Amino acid sequence: MRIGVLGAGQLGRMLALAGYPLAKTFVFYDMSGSPSAGLGEVIIDREGQYQDDFLSRVDRVTYEFEHLPVEVAEKLAKEKPVHPCPRALQVCQNRELEKTLFGQLGIPTPAWKIADSAESLKAAAEELGCPVVAKSNTEGYDGKGQAVLRSPDDAEQAWADIGHPRLIVEKFVEFTREVSIIAVRAEDGDVAFYPMAENTHHEGILRYSIAPAPKLDKAVQESAERYIRALLNELDYVGVLTLELFETEDGLVANEMAPRVHNSGHWTIEGAVTSQFENHIRAVSGHHLGSVEARGLSCMINIIGEHGDIDRILELPYAKVHLYNKGERAGRKLGHVNILADSYEELVWRVRNCAQFLPGSPAFKSSLTPKG
Amino acid sequence: MRIGVLGAGQLGRMLALAGYPLAKTFVFYDMSGSPSAGLGEVIIDREGQYQDDFLSRVDRVTYEFEHLPVEVAEKLAKEKPVHPCPRALQVCQNRELEKTLFGQLGIPTPAWKIADSAESLKAAAEELGCPVVAKSNTEGYDGKGQAVLRSPDDAEQAWADIGHPRLIVEKFVEFTREVSIIAVRAEDGDVAFYPMAENTHHEGILRYSIAPAPKLDKAVQESAERYIRALLNELDYVGVLTLELFETEDGLVANEMAPRVHNSGHWTIEGAVTSQFENHIRAVSGHHLGSVEARGLSCMINIIGEHGDIDRILELPYAKVHLYNKGERAGRKLGHVNILADSYEELVWRVRNCAQFLPGSPAFKSSLTPKG
Repeated sequence: MRIGVLGAGQLGRMLALAGYPLAKTFVFYDMSGSPSAGLGEVIIDREGQYQDDFLSRVDRVTYEFEHLPVEVAEKLAKEKPVHPCPRALQVCQNRELEKTLFGQLGIPTPAWKIADSAESLKAAAEELGCPVVAKSNTEGYDGKGQAVLRSPDDAEQAWADIGHPRLIVEKFVEFTREVSIIAVRAEDGDVAFYPMAENTHHEGILRYSIAPAPKLDKAVQESAERYIRALLNELDYVGVLTLELFETEDGLVANEMAPRVHNSGHWTIEGAVTSQFENHIRAVSGHHLGSVEARGLSCMINIIGEHGDIDRILELPYAKVHLYNKGERAGRKLGHVNILADSYEELVWRVRNCAQFLPGSPAFKSSLTPKG
Repeated sequence: MRIGVLGAGQLGRMLALAGYPLAKTFVFYDMSGSPSAGLGEVIIDREGQYQDDFLSRVDRVTYEFEHLPVEVAEKLAKEKPVHPCPRALQVCQNRELEKTLFGQLGIPTPAWKIADSAESLKAAAEELGCPVVAKSNTEGYDGKGQAVLRSPDDAEQAWADIGHPRLIVEKFVEFTREVSIIAVRAEDGDVAFYPMAENTHHEGILRYSIAPAPKLDKAVQESAERYIRALLNELDYVGVLTLELFETEDGLVANEMAPRVHNSGHWTIEGAVTSQFENHIRAVSGHHLGSVEARGLSCMINIIGEHGDIDRILELPYAKVHLYNKGERAGRKLGHVNILADSYEELVWRVRNCAQFLPGSPAFKSSLTPKG
């Protein structure tokens, strides 16, 4: 089976690496002009002229990147099965739609308002009570297009900084930690949930994911599963879906969803029986889902901006290196390292030992480390 | 780093799948005209005209197939590092050279003689004492070019059947089981040994490999490590080397070696911290070796001739499917399934459950199953 992937970055690369052993082949459709998947055929189409060519070479279509025109996905879906459905794309591209859907499905979110001017931003900040986070309603990802307002007086500056005509303003959530759940739904409606991950961000970019999340209440995992199941079923979703959440003293609060394999699921490559990438390919291809059971404990460390001393990391017997073969650039995701262990104590020690060879990495902090 | 692979079959495919995450790229050099790697660039060169082109595109050269002219490897080695060294190829292509080297290094082999006529074959059978196995001295693999002589009178027929001008005649070994050891040697001389596998052949083709081999005496693993270490050091070998052995009541007896990743090591993809493929790429690229520690118990089942019911196998939560995307043909290796378990009892049950969906598979027999 020939899988067409919209987008051609590292997620597409890892989908292909997981899909070849299932006898899939891959064609990437890239609109950015800078594909980095590094394997499989790539059709570069900045002008949107080669969609028919792409379609003629694939049996199913999926994506690794949600910031592409919904119309493109819809047009393709008229000719070939596109998983997940274009509606999932649409929801993820628009925070207002997304938060509205969360609310309809009973998934808790921070209190939020829409602002379409500096004045309405200020009013929203006043009504919600600061601090608030203002985010461009569309086109934002990896912490871009966001600002924190400590006081309503920050509104004018924030409005100018973000520079977007429509913002979503969210009340700041007092969270104990950031977590995510990754689930996969098959064509026949079967659903599987990976154990949740605990995520640490730094400057808006994911740095560490520990899975299964330490000290996670069973009831919390179950709540997250209920929420993401509601989304999967509502969207008649096929493939991997990710839901990022805040864990608070009052339970989980949803942050956002991603209609694709996700950085906080990279630990599954060695840390689960079936990786998120393989399960996405299985779902998109119409196969049965694979086991999502964890194999020991994992921590994923992102390699950001510079590669550091990869040769030293290759000496660590518990480190699995995954490079994307991209050039160094500040803030760029260049690869990740999965650290394996049998106890959380061992995991912390190993993560710190590895992180010393990644100069861009912030000090490792998690629910496993003392607060400081 | 660009790795050039001589040969373009499923072993090359799996080398590439393991090498991409280490930021390697792959160019395959195929002399057969029917490459099946299915990813990476392939140079098809039946006439041997494009070696310079191949060399200009790679930094290091390795192989996935040992039946290629030694002169080709030697010529390439004048321009670029070729690992393992062409001498390893040469030894593996000539059973007489191989057995002689084993003898020099103190590695036990079956008693053997050379025959270059039906008469000398008969004489060899008489001197060694039947049964004996006659094998073409060169060009034989996967059980091809072999005959068993139950009596010296079978010599004429065997000579005609094999049709090769020079045979090696080996005394039949009374073995309790077939085993193999896979080791890897780095450029700096560091060596690592995988736990040994127990192998079951059927009609000359490997069908099942269980690893770590059940009920294996520690002393037996150590003997095998001593033998393969002697080979690695003698050949100043870089990369993965495989040694197939018979386990007998008097200890191990070497059968043959393969200068490459090996079918009896496919279990390492999920069954070891670092797969044989990744470790070969690490060694060939000049990196440190990865951990060869087992992750639980594994059994590899080859998919031979026909694919069977892959969709049913994908439903088994403990089965990892690896397809080579090749067409069906009697006796052809089309893929393999790695079965994972935490106990041998569970492993046997799971292997049998999986094998029922592979119609070409012989009944599972191993040291774990009652003799019958």
